[in-house]
Amino acid sequence: MKYTIFGESHGPAIGVVLEGVPPGLEFDMEAMKRELSRRAPKADGFSTARKEADEVHVLSGLFEGKTTGTPLTLVIQNSDQHSGDYEALRYTPRPSHGDYAGFIASKGCLDYRGGGHFSGRLTAPLVAAGSVAKQLLAQRNIDLASHISAIYGILDRAWEDVEELKEVAIKPFPVLDDGKGEEMRRAILEAKNDQDSVGGSIECAVWGLPAGLGAPDFGRNVEGIFSQYLFAVPAVKAVSFGAGVGFSYMRGTEANDLFEVRDGKVLTKTNHAGGINGGITNGMPIVFEVAMRPTPSIALPQESVDLRTGEEVEIEIQGRHDPCVVHRAVPVIEAAAALAVCEVLGL
Amino acid sequence: MKYTIFGESHGPAIGVVLEGVPPGLEFDMEAMKRELSRRAPKADGFSTARKEADEVHVLSGLFEGKTTGTPLTLVIQNSDQHSGDYEALRYTPRPSHGDYAGFIASKGCLDYRGGGHFSGRLTAPLVAAGSVAKQLLAQRNIDLASHISAIYGILDRAWEDVEELKEVAIKPFPVLDDGKGEEMRRAILEAKNDQDSVGGSIECAVWGLPAGLGAPDFGRNVEGIFSQYLFAVPAVKAVSFGAGVGFSYMRGTEANDLFEVRDGKVLTKTNHAGGINGGITNGMPIVFEVAMRPTPSIALPQESVDLRTGEEVEIEIQGRHDPCVVHRAVPVIEAAAALAVCEVLGL
Amino acid sequence: MKYTIFGESHGPAIGVVLEGVPPGLEFDMEAMKRELSRRAPKADGFSTARKEADEVHVLSGLFEGKTTGTPLTLVIQNSDQHSGDYEALRYTPRPSHGDYAGFIASKGCLDYRGGGHFSGRLTAPLVAAGSVAKQLLAQRNIDLASHISAIYGILDRAWEDVEELKEVAIKPFPVLDDGKGEEMRRAILEAKNDQDSVGGSIECAVWGLPAGLGAPDFGRNVEGIFSQYLFAVPAVKAVSFGAGVGFSYMRGTEANDLFEVRDGKVLTKTNHAGGINGGITNGMPIVFEVAMRPTPSIALPQESVDLRTGEEVEIEIQGRHDPCVVHRAVPVIEAAAALAVCEVLGL
Amino acid sequence: MKYTIFGESHGPAIGVVLEGVPPGLEFDMEAMKRELSRRAPKADGFSTARKEADEVHVLSGLFEGKTTGTPLTLVIQNSDQHSGDYEALRYTPRPSHGDYAGFIASKGCLDYRGGGHFSGRLTAPLVAAGSVAKQLLAQRNIDLASHISAIYGILDRAWEDVEELKEVAIKPFPVLDDGKGEEMRRAILEAKNDQDSVGGSIECAVWGLPAGLGAPDFGRNVEGIFSQYLFAVPAVKAVSFGAGVGFSYMRGTEANDLFEVRDGKVLTKTNHAGGINGGITNGMPIVFEVAMRPTPSIALPQESVDLRTGEEVEIEIQGRHDPCVVHRAVPVIEAAAALAVCEVLGL
Repeated sequence: MKYTIFGESHGPAIGVVLEGVPPGLEFDMEAMKRELSRRAPKADGFSTARKEADEVHVLSGLFEGKTTGTPLTLVIQNSDQHSGDYEALRYTPRPSHGDYAGFIASKGCLDYRGGGHFSGRLTAPLVAAGSVAKQLLAQRNIDLASHISAIYGILDRAWEDVEELKEVAIKPFPVLDDGKGEEMRRAILEAKNDQDSVGGSIECAVWGLPAGLGAPDFGRNVEGIFSQYLFAVPAVKAVSFGAGVGFSYMRGTEANDLFEVRDGKVLTKTNHAGGINGGITNGMPIVFEVAMRPTPSIALPQESVDLRTGEEVEIEIQGRHDPCVVHRAVPVIEAAAALAVCEVLGL
Repeated sequence: MKYTIFGESHGPAIGVVLEGVPPGLEFDMEAMKRELSRRAPKADGFSTARKEADEVHVLSGLFEGKTTGTPLTLVIQNSDQHSGDYEALRYTPRPSHGDYAGFIASKGCLDYRGGGHFSGRLTAPLVAAGSVAKQLLAQRNIDLASHISAIYGILDRAWEDVEELKEVAIKPFPVLDDGKGEEMRRAILEAKNDQDSVGGSIECAVWGLPAGLGAPDFGRNVEGIFSQYLFAVPAVKAVSFGAGVGFSYMRGTEANDLFEVRDGKVLTKTNHAGGINGGITNGMPIVFEVAMRPTPSIALPQESVDLRTGEEVEIEIQGRHDPCVVHRAVPVIEAAAALAVCEVLGL
Repeated sequence: MKYTIFGESHGPAIGVVLEGVPPGLEFDMEAMKRELSRRAPKADGFSTARKEADEVHVLSGLFEGKTTGTPLTLVIQNSDQHSGDYEALRYTPRPSHGDYAGFIASKGCLDYRGGGHFSGRLTAPLVAAGSVAKQLLAQRNIDLASHISAIYGILDRAWEDVEELKEVAIKPFPVLDDGKGEEMRRAILEAKNDQDSVGGSIECAVWGLPAGLGAPDFGRNVEGIFSQYLFAVPAVKAVSFGAGVGFSYMRGTEANDLFEVRDGKVLTKTNHAGGINGGITNGMPIVFEVAMRPTPSIALPQESVDLRTGEEVEIEIQGRHDPCVVHRAVPVIEAAAALAVCEVLGL
Repeated sequence: MKYTIFGESHGPAIGVVLEGVPPGLEFDMEAMKRELSRRAPKADGFSTARKEADEVHVLSGLFEGKTTGTPLTLVIQNSDQHSGDYEALRYTPRPSHGDYAGFIASKGCLDYRGGGHFSGRLTAPLVAAGSVAKQLLAQRNIDLASHISAIYGILDRAWEDVEELKEVAIKPFPVLDDGKGEEMRRAILEAKNDQDSVGGSIECAVWGLPAGLGAPDFGRNVEGIFSQYLFAVPAVKAVSFGAGVGFSYMRGTEANDLFEVRDGKVLTKTNHAGGINGGITNGMPIVFEVAMRPTPSIALPQESVDLRTGEEVEIEIQGRHDPCVVHRAVPVIEAAAALAVCEVLGL
């Protein structure tokens, strides 16, 4: 299964083509809508005011409610665009956005309106594609769930078992420790009031995968496969597995996962490896974490350069922006992970 | 350019095939030897005692000292193998090694001797392939260098400019702050004395790349491309760009890289983004960090399972092992990065 | 550049996503329309009566008339569908169509209406994608043209120079020898009157490509690249280069292309190799031919099997069908070739 | 499974790396030797006098007689090289060889000795790789066999059933009609006596594949997959399936394969489609044919150009050459087909 996301924020439509979808899947549009609504802006006091209907139209690959195995095309029409907000920024790239790099890459032909193809809006078709992947995984008793592990340095507690994580993942603001969640929300609101933004992290677990999938080699390595999907999510700047960066603070005695027999299966007592050894699944849940940068769109004046004249200028970003995207990104990260799991399974 | 590493630690040979090498490169075997010697065990009191000649034989793709554009095959014969050391571990996997996952993946047909295809020894052909990539990049004035950024929680200081980093990278124990380096060495020796091991991190910078390479999309995203190469290096468990995990502690005002004009070029004052925005290079150095797990081979007794009987057993790992691989991994990470840069450049 | 065609004949829409289109191309919609009209049914007495508007909507990848380098999505809405015609054939596959193979591949979930994803209608987005490729090639002074080389065993004469072929290619019934063209038309009409169909061949030439592109190896071989694009065109059952099948009737002295210097260039006196030696372009025009099977949709009763009961049954195909698709396939073959050339060029 | 062939005719060694070989295959070296001996020069009066030991060394991927799932590397050392024969041709390319195209592609850095990487000798590792593929297919009751269908216009008769073809395929000169075989041999000898060469064709059948594999789409189309493997065989200039070029002489009533129920299976009465409809297997044997050009190495003087001076020159090719390679190519074509079938099966 291979996905291609297309579209620009203020173009006619955005969407995704999924090639290689197994035939015969009873397509669950309601499940897809639920995933998309997890990503939609919330009336939480800090999400963007842009209204996004996110209604998915199926152009191909579905017949009588089942996938046919031919390319599945999902399209979302664009609406409620305020393109005028972006006119002023056309030649003065917003710091830490894709504007400048994209301007050069496109030889100046970028659709600059609303971030164009770089917009966070393009994560809607990713969530739609991920919903198809999740439906395929559910058939195989593979599930995944996640929580916000950090926002602006405020850390959620560790999860203890999979059931707990599953319950948390569907909350509008998915944290295990609601007290910490309250602190995070406050940090977001304070950033908003200061016309600023905050970054954060998401931890995700996948369970139900058998041991023995993947290989140590380039291109077949499970960590490499996951990371390629995860770094394709806008704002993700770090990907780690199991103890991750913590490994560089550890000794082997702390890091090693000792074996035991549990329920007749060879498993490990701990899961510092995040379910992967030598690039291959080991039968424990795959656990990974991504760190996401603070939204670069902040209302404060910032220094830029006019690409026509080469002069330094100060810009102010107008428009409606999230002071934090981490909570809305939870289903996006799960979608990317679900697609990665499909590749690992050879779907 | 595409690389395929083959071989097993105690098989007849290990090596690499590089497809798509541009023709006409004056192949510098001395440069390749220098890279391999950076990776070789050192007489530093804590490297493995295994002697590895690492002499590279070119089987194909080279004629009269130049690459021909046909597949370039580099082979290193194996020697000084103590296969007997591993006999006892055949059916009792070493914790946190690839043994168990590999046993399942191979349906029990794994070459278990010396870690087989999972052995750190397979990083020698990777360094050889990376040397070819570096030679190609040097022609284009692209260079890269790195330092040990952490070992067992002891952090090296940040680098200030590229020249400084270049000088450090060729040291046998490449750190910027030699005092910190001394502390790190002590931590390694203590771990060795305790029959234990330690993890650490490597930070690497690539400069000379133009802005505008890559795309936000899956498969063409510069961070995704790099991460796939980096996670194919054994023991790497985290990959981050620029401020990396630090982004989740930041506000937008701290994280954003403001633009300025320097030497007639549009650049950013800071480089928190690590040279990449929206999956595309922005003309600043690409900066990334990897975290590596402590060597799982420790001499202390550990709990395993006998895969024949399903019984829990205690094992002791014999053989010659590094208490830390981070310093020897520096040229390996650079090799992986150099190959990634070649892909980004479309070489 | 990579294309993905999606859609079903009687679904809401058909289309194509092109990834990796170079940015900055002045998109010529009129040129695309011209290509599509070459493929459209003609009032020639034997083309299908289905009216296909084939109006292309650009969903993404285009801004202010230029390509942006992001995925380019082209969509054609479906209309004038007579789905009822196909109801009777749902479980009784039409001989030599994709019906049966597709039924098994899709686990019975195929959209059977109008051939679904197997329909010749899906060649419309291919022509659209090919038009983008042709526009990119035109910028590089690479051109291609073709003629019907055979229909029902009636052979067109050989072309002498590229100018001649260019003039012929845009004719509604592109043959060099109009007398032969008349015979071919008659053969088609006779087949139509007999409720039968006829097959034929198309020969195509590409010129303007430099020598030295490609490699002998799997995956980089120019003949292999072309053939993959050409066999993805429905009804193509044979692909050959230069003298093609004729080589098996030849001696080396007849087949070898002797060198000479022409206009200061190293070229060959003949072009039996079709512009490719050892999988690499040699600077002569690439010349290839495809053979296409007769349309399997014929009105005569044919033997099939009811896939529900396993019983042999006789079927009659209703609906509107072309007794020959070869003349309409000319721009389709050129489109596939243009996309192949883009891959060969590394676009 | 992916193969990479490396090596040059007069370099130290030639070989192949096979990635993704399923683990646990009992590797049959004797079967591999038998395949290689089918390709070896014969004492038949017209094969090359070059002695090729073709002894295969396994460098990796095999342990205790079984594949491990890691890259399988097979190497054949070179010997009996007469490099001096080629010195004179270094800058005067042989007509219709890869010399000139390769010279340009390699920027003049080609290993010109003995055809270098373009040499027919590189088909030995392809046969070795194909033997691994055949062993995997045999486990799944998939078999393939072939015969010489034409040499210099002398056609073998059609095969009637698979058993007949299997018996023929292992003959040193595999034809169904030995009278025709005698004529072909005479044509080869006559060409040899005239210092000339002849071309020919090979037809191959694969049976045991289930219906429903593949897709109509680019990259997944069974015909496209096969053709990519087949055109990577030196000298192949045409690939066709089933009736192939003959389709352009047919009407639908002649070409269509009517369905029937045989042994409880839905099959077709004829197999003009060569086992593939709409790019998908239909349960009938896959039947394809390749046409191979006459060996371009002929002893007669031929016109070339001196690439240093740009002057037209006459050359004479020295060395030991086959006046026909078709009979030796039979196992090569089968090897390519076996690898293609593995891809179609998702191995």
